[in-house]
Amino acid sequence: MPAQPLDATPEQRAKAGEPPLQHDGQDQKPKQLPKGVVLGPDGKPCRSCTSVASWRAMIKEKSTQPKTVSTTQPPAIATTSLQPPKDCPPDVDELGRSTWTLLHSMTATYPEKPSFTQQSETRQFMSLFGKMYPCWVCADDFRAWMKEGNEPRVSNREEFGRWMCEAHNAVNVKLGKEAFDCNRWQERWRTGWKDGRCDQ
Amino acid sequence: MPAQPLDATPEQRAKAGEPPLQHDGQDQKPKQLPKGVVLGPDGKPCRSCTSVASWRAMIKEKSTQPKTVSTTQPPAIATTSLQPPKDCPPDVDELGRSTWTLLHSMTATYPEKPSFTQQSETRQFMSLFGKMYPCWVCADDFRAWMKEGNEPRVSNREEFGRWMCEAHNAVNVKLGKEAFDCNRWQERWRTGWKDGRCDQ
Repeated sequence: MPAQPLDATPEQRAKAGEPPLQHDGQDQKPKQLPKGVVLGPDGKPCRSCTSVASWRAMIKEKSTQPKTVSTTQPPAIATTSLQPPKDCPPDVDELGRSTWTLLHSMTATYPEKPSFTQQSETRQFMSLFGKMYPCWVCADDFRAWMKEGNEPRVSNREEFGRWMCEAHNAVNVKLGKEAFDCNRWQERWRTGWKDGRCDQ
Repeated sequence: MPAQPLDATPEQRAKAGEPPLQHDGQDQKPKQLPKGVVLGPDGKPCRSCTSVASWRAMIKEKSTQPKTVSTTQPPAIATTSLQPPKDCPPDVDELGRSTWTLLHSMTATYPEKPSFTQQSETRQFMSLFGKMYPCWVCADDFRAWMKEGNEPRVSNREEFGRWMCEAHNAVNVKLGKEAFDCNRWQERWRTGWKDGRCDQ
């Protein structure tokens, strides 16, 4: 099964600064940031929107500024094996994994017969989540996806879980990852797999 | 620094069934569940409310039912080292860690000067979160804590981050864990530590 982060595609990451520019405090000349570094609304690099690999590349460039390092050719980055150090702010990938864990678990414990109020509050929660998710480019995309005829389906647990699975798959597809078989979302997030490996 | 899960204390876990009883399908005699297994609103064991250790103890007891195994003396459980298998539903600890990662990150990207609407939506989000968190006993406790004079403080980033840190510490204290120094929440969740170890 693929990892399923709610994170930014390279396109999304590039959104924030096209081209991503940063003012160098010394000479006031705009300086290109390494690939994948997304700026926040404050114009500073957004940690929650950036992978740890890109973040490190940026730090490395900063520390080697006096040398003649090309800033347009960042080092090749193997994003899959890198993890932020323990007890450090999460990068976009760790944030994504954590968030999907919460969101899918919410669908797993959602009632089979939710009240009108529960349905309404769930819609409201997803709408607010779409505004407040810390990676703002990811949040933008999530809101756009919901508007494209993908409003939350919250009439019962199976519907809500399947909708969340589809939301996750929309991100997977953007990231070039394999889509998850949404027929099995309950096995993945609620009951454990039928082969019993989750109980061992 | 301590791990800071938003999870259930033994007392919270016991809340759901005092004593935790389960009907045995074969003889209809109530059967005691292993320590730490919390029931959901549907009367079935709640995976999001239970540690993987207790869950496994429960499965083990189920599979050894015909034998003369004591169900009142569950095995000693080392909860700290156990992790749910990959691609399996998260236990209460994994869910807690994931959720704190999202919540603290939300405070890290919260504006320094939020609009009235942003403040109002943030209060609303936290209120809905308190109703919808998948571990219902944890959610109950979180709502109770907020009502005890701990309404979300959302007037600016520093306030919101500090409030979240205090919310997390309330759980830490219940779990017998060390409280986190909230003066350093920005280093932990936003900027990385001053010694630079988060940039390496």
